Amino acid sequence: MKAWENNIRKIVPYTPGEQPDSPNMIKLNTNENPYPPALGVQKAIREFQMERLKLYPDPTSNLLVKALADYYKLEENQVFVGVGSDDVLAMAFMTFFNSDKPILFPDITYSFYDVWADLFRIPYVRPALDVDFRIKKEDYYRENGGIVIANPNAPTSIYEDVNFIRDIVEHNQESIVIVDEAYIDFGGKSSLELIKEFDNLLVVQTFSKSRSMAGMRIGYAMGNPALIKAINDVKYSYNSYTMNQTSLYYGVEAVKDETYFKETLEKIITTREWVKEELKKLEFSFPDSKTNFIFASHKFIPAAEIFNALREENIFVRYFNKPGINNYLRITIGTDEEMKQLLKALEQIINRI
Amino acid sequence: MKAWENNIRKIVPYTPGEQPDSPNMIKLNTNENPYPPALGVQKAIREFQMERLKLYPDPTSNLLVKALADYYKLEENQVFVGVGSDDVLAMAFMTFFNSDKPILFPDITYSFYDVWADLFRIPYVRPALDVDFRIKKEDYYRENGGIVIANPNAPTSIYEDVNFIRDIVEHNQESIVIVDEAYIDFGGKSSLELIKEFDNLLVVQTFSKSRSMAGMRIGYAMGNPALIKAINDVKYSYNSYTMNQTSLYYGVEAVKDETYFKETLEKIITTREWVKEELKKLEFSFPDSKTNFIFASHKFIPAAEIFNALREENIFVRYFNKPGINNYLRITIGTDEEMKQLLKALEQIINRI
Repeated sequence: MKAWENNIRKIVPYTPGEQPDSPNMIKLNTNENPYPPALGVQKAIREFQMERLKLYPDPTSNLLVKALADYYKLEENQVFVGVGSDDVLAMAFMTFFNSDKPILFPDITYSFYDVWADLFRIPYVRPALDVDFRIKKEDYYRENGGIVIANPNAPTSIYEDVNFIRDIVEHNQESIVIVDEAYIDFGGKSSLELIKEFDNLLVVQTFSKSRSMAGMRIGYAMGNPALIKAINDVKYSYNSYTMNQTSLYYGVEAVKDETYFKETLEKIITTREWVKEELKKLEFSFPDSKTNFIFASHKFIPAAEIFNALREENIFVRYFNKPGINNYLRITIGTDEEMKQLLKALEQIINRI
Repeated sequence: MKAWENNIRKIVPYTPGEQPDSPNMIKLNTNENPYPPALGVQKAIREFQMERLKLYPDPTSNLLVKALADYYKLEENQVFVGVGSDDVLAMAFMTFFNSDKPILFPDITYSFYDVWADLFRIPYVRPALDVDFRIKKEDYYRENGGIVIANPNAPTSIYEDVNFIRDIVEHNQESIVIVDEAYIDFGGKSSLELIKEFDNLLVVQTFSKSRSMAGMRIGYAMGNPALIKAINDVKYSYNSYTMNQTSLYYGVEAVKDETYFKETLEKIITTREWVKEELKKLEFSFPDSKTNFIFASHKFIPAAEIFNALREENIFVRYFNKPGINNYLRITIGTDEEMKQLLKALEQIINRI
């Protein structure tokens, strides 16, 4: 071993969902939206002035911050944007979790939280979900250096209401509470209204799911101006210009088109509710999803077997080989046609095995 | 003060150069390229398939990594890409500088190095440049936790040859040496050839200057596969998908067009050499720049005065109010027409004051 190797940060990297690119595949493995972005985005792409590319983007990302502030009826100093909600959350961990006390998040939740905590050497404790995969709010009444709750939670798909979040924040006014609402638009109600009451609450959302823009890498955080200033200070100290010119221009158009946004959500929710009924008929069980995915387990057939059998049919879903959830599949809601093909394949697999 | 405020990371944020957006301004303050990106980029913009935006980008950024590997005749596992060289350098600091010993970089250099060191709580020592703003290589023969050298250095514009860098790396085989070559294409020779000899050397470059793409945020690092794997592991643990779909597609086109790239560089170098002569006539002195900017001081008139007078003419240059360099202006090389207007304005200011 070379001497310099001792200076390398030791980490176990996060494993992102695979990004297969096979023709005619059905891709239901990373919770992308099956519908394209709003039409205004198409226009922004066509009309984009190449000359802009030679200039640094606005480091304050004001175009996009303003569009989001207008949309959510906030002040601009209450909104922070980053390169996907992963970038926003990573910076939030670095900015807000600098206590010697452990931060708290559920044992089953977005699998990036412990990776960030390890990366930034933040101590953490992971209270267990209950047997129905629900978060026990009492577990978050203890002393801590910060709290992160995904709501709806992933990969469980379970949504808790605003009073549940309020209760956790009320019990934790000495630390910063982050609510990760990546999936909130698919049937939940945002805790955003609570930022008026609680200046220690940060609400994080993303363009990757409900706004059909996983490929643009846009996420955002909303909270009181002191929190937003703190995270912006860290952002300016890490990379002053994180949002490229296309993200700013295309992103704004995605926010503007409320009608298309609502229509797309409605379509996905309708598909989801229909797929739930069909999965029940095939003897799958699952928590009642308020997200764009279903976290399902079959009565007889191990999830790993179904996962592999689906791959052979060129259908990709997500399987986590982790204790407690290793008999579940996380299935993204695609178009009706894609889900029909999935259901047909599942039926054949079940009958065959 | 609220209890949670104690958990916020304390930092003095980096101050990026202002990004004025005034009509008819002459913007020579952030070392952008005055020429647009290669024509292939225009085509990539027009032909970009909006459908791509709903899908996560390839987390390995393979399209772009491959294009760079081909261009520099490297293997793909020797190339890392990030959101501008700032992102690449920030991740490199986080990945490679985890020693208790201080890292070393010059007292006058890219002003982000100490910001990153502070952000990641890395100890550092800053050896002073000599009276001619040159790096003294003997200062880098001491024990350290890593080394960062900008070559050409900024804002001094001075280039040191490959043997100079080789000497520093040879004396430091126990720590990782980063050479930040943001400006290398404007007349220097890259130290890239040294990565064959030294597995502890990382060479960082950017699309923001020579490739006219500051607005796209693309930077890259080249080094031995062990270094590239280590920084990729940190990247995947921070944000798996940093490069958005447009960066990948537009970026590749900028790499492909070698002819345009060389023509643009030639134009900027020609303009720079002419501007040097004109500035001398106006009694400015400056190190011999091998970058796309000139770091100039006037014989009689304080830099701050000239800076403000130019602003009134809607001409923006960069002024650093820091000890040792507070009588210098950093002037980006623009088009011939822009530089003519600058020189005319300087002449008037000098005659007036």
